[in-house]
Amino acid sequence: MTFFRTDIAQKILGGCEYRPVERFEASASVNIALCKYWGKRDSQLNLPVNDSLSVALPGKGTRTRVTRLLGGTKDEVFLNERLTQETESFYRRVVDHLDLFRRDAGDYFRVDTVNSVATAAGLASSASGFAALTRAMAGVQGVSLDDDALSILARLGSGSACRSMYDGFVRWYKGGREDGMDSFAKPLRNVWRCLRLGVLTLNAAVKKTSSREGMAHTVETASLYNAWPLQAERDIVALEQAVTTQNFEQLGATAEHNAMAMHATMMASWPPLLYWVPESVAVMQKVWQLREDGVPVYFTMDAGPNVKLLFESRVEHVIRQVFSDVEVIQLFS
Amino acid sequence: MTFFRTDIAQKILGGCEYRPVERFEASASVNIALCKYWGKRDSQLNLPVNDSLSVALPGKGTRTRVTRLLGGTKDEVFLNERLTQETESFYRRVVDHLDLFRRDAGDYFRVDTVNSVATAAGLASSASGFAALTRAMAGVQGVSLDDDALSILARLGSGSACRSMYDGFVRWYKGGREDGMDSFAKPLRNVWRCLRLGVLTLNAAVKKTSSREGMAHTVETASLYNAWPLQAERDIVALEQAVTTQNFEQLGATAEHNAMAMHATMMASWPPLLYWVPESVAVMQKVWQLREDGVPVYFTMDAGPNVKLLFESRVEHVIRQVFSDVEVIQLFS
Repeated sequence: MTFFRTDIAQKILGGCEYRPVERFEASASVNIALCKYWGKRDSQLNLPVNDSLSVALPGKGTRTRVTRLLGGTKDEVFLNERLTQETESFYRRVVDHLDLFRRDAGDYFRVDTVNSVATAAGLASSASGFAALTRAMAGVQGVSLDDDALSILARLGSGSACRSMYDGFVRWYKGGREDGMDSFAKPLRNVWRCLRLGVLTLNAAVKKTSSREGMAHTVETASLYNAWPLQAERDIVALEQAVTTQNFEQLGATAEHNAMAMHATMMASWPPLLYWVPESVAVMQKVWQLREDGVPVYFTMDAGPNVKLLFESRVEHVIRQVFSDVEVIQLFS
Repeated sequence: MTFFRTDIAQKILGGCEYRPVERFEASASVNIALCKYWGKRDSQLNLPVNDSLSVALPGKGTRTRVTRLLGGTKDEVFLNERLTQETESFYRRVVDHLDLFRRDAGDYFRVDTVNSVATAAGLASSASGFAALTRAMAGVQGVSLDDDALSILARLGSGSACRSMYDGFVRWYKGGREDGMDSFAKPLRNVWRCLRLGVLTLNAAVKKTSSREGMAHTVETASLYNAWPLQAERDIVALEQAVTTQNFEQLGATAEHNAMAMHATMMASWPPLLYWVPESVAVMQKVWQLREDGVPVYFTMDAGPNVKLLFESRVEHVIRQVFSDVEVIQLFS
């Protein structure tokens, strides 16, 4: 049986009481996956092939305000204070998401969304964007939903958005149901105060190939992709254990290995998909040199050229020395 | 049953008549694999997991002279006119190879080997080296061996050396026997006059990790490696077809895809193995841009940072314009 996104929204919202308000504002943080979401078993519902695990970046993300348009004839979508056009894919994706929450065909909304990170540059702005939009829409419609339901609705907008419903470490359970009602995120609750993430923005330009396209291309054409789900399954176990025991080496090594394996599946696709710029390689070599010199630092990379360093506060001064333009984020306060 | 290299040499040379001469000189060309040799099923005998296919680089390679030492007490090995020490791995590997051909324990030899390419920089000097040494040793011992036997003996020194026994396109059949007596190379005989290979030497320094070590590390630790043999099997078929029909796009695309998949398995190993330098990525991006602009050019890369371009003579002027320091090699004359 094939399910459409609207079927799932109906399952979740069908029995809800609506208590509409005029305006609602919500925010969500971007998240960086330590075990990546890479490959869909259902591209309509954004159901993943494997579980993933992320950590939220506090203070980096999206703030979204939804305002009910009285007597409107269409939705208005503002991205970073710019009115987007109906022909833009961003507009289209937002309106598709509004459709999930719309009760009457005549309900129109104005969406004001502001990102504190570069859009579509591999910094996961779509995750925080759809998480914030989901919260804002639930709020403006006045529907009372539990956390799992909200996480599922966010997932329908952008897979990794289901993880951006929470702060801290978050695991997205892939689930097994065809309708995806068991595919949502849960927070891990563990706090790791000395953990740091260093963002190296090597290139903030819009990517030539979106993560969504890259993922589909890889699954379709990379023979090496077959081995990915098994690796992800092993990495998830190692990461949860590392978080529980606060074993930094295990956390860093597993995250870096996972990221490299994901990029490996991309470059083994045809035509090859390489999100790296030359500086990405230079940064990696520097990280490996630091480790050889005894500094415990690892990296992860999403579907983009930028590199995110993982380290603990005690080596922050070394990291700042070697990477003068690094932006250091304290993950737990 | 486990076979040692000396067992195999005994099988081949055991029944031979020896007609020793004082001195013998031989040469062999390096070869560039279009479908890579990556992974061993037997590391003692250099038996590969998959068939591979290469093309020889005429004029690039090794010239080796073997001279019988009368009244000597040990072998003397000169690499590019420098006497190597017994503690060097190069000396050790050469002497191990001489052992295969030695009839009496008191037989010692002087080996003079000269490479026309940088040693151990990913330009396959060990392939041409062991191919030339095999021919020279067979010559100085005066044993008459058929081509398959010579190819097997070369393989015992360095896997890809079995391909350097021939010019042009060469396929190494992996074979299935435990003793490797069916694992040798055969030439394809097809001639492709307008085919060009462009060598971009980005870094001629000795590699930190040899191909031999890299291969073993990848097979042991990369979960993605499991998918490699199947890809290689498909690529071999596509390459032979491309050579037969002189379909350049098919040749180039298959070779590039194969190289990227090999590098992908390396970077998915742990710790990650990345032979690239930042300039490697810059060159790849340039090649992909050229293709987008309608110039048919592809690349391959071995276990090193250097990039080898594949193109036909009609676009040579464009290639020379974009890559001013490229060394263009005509593969067939």
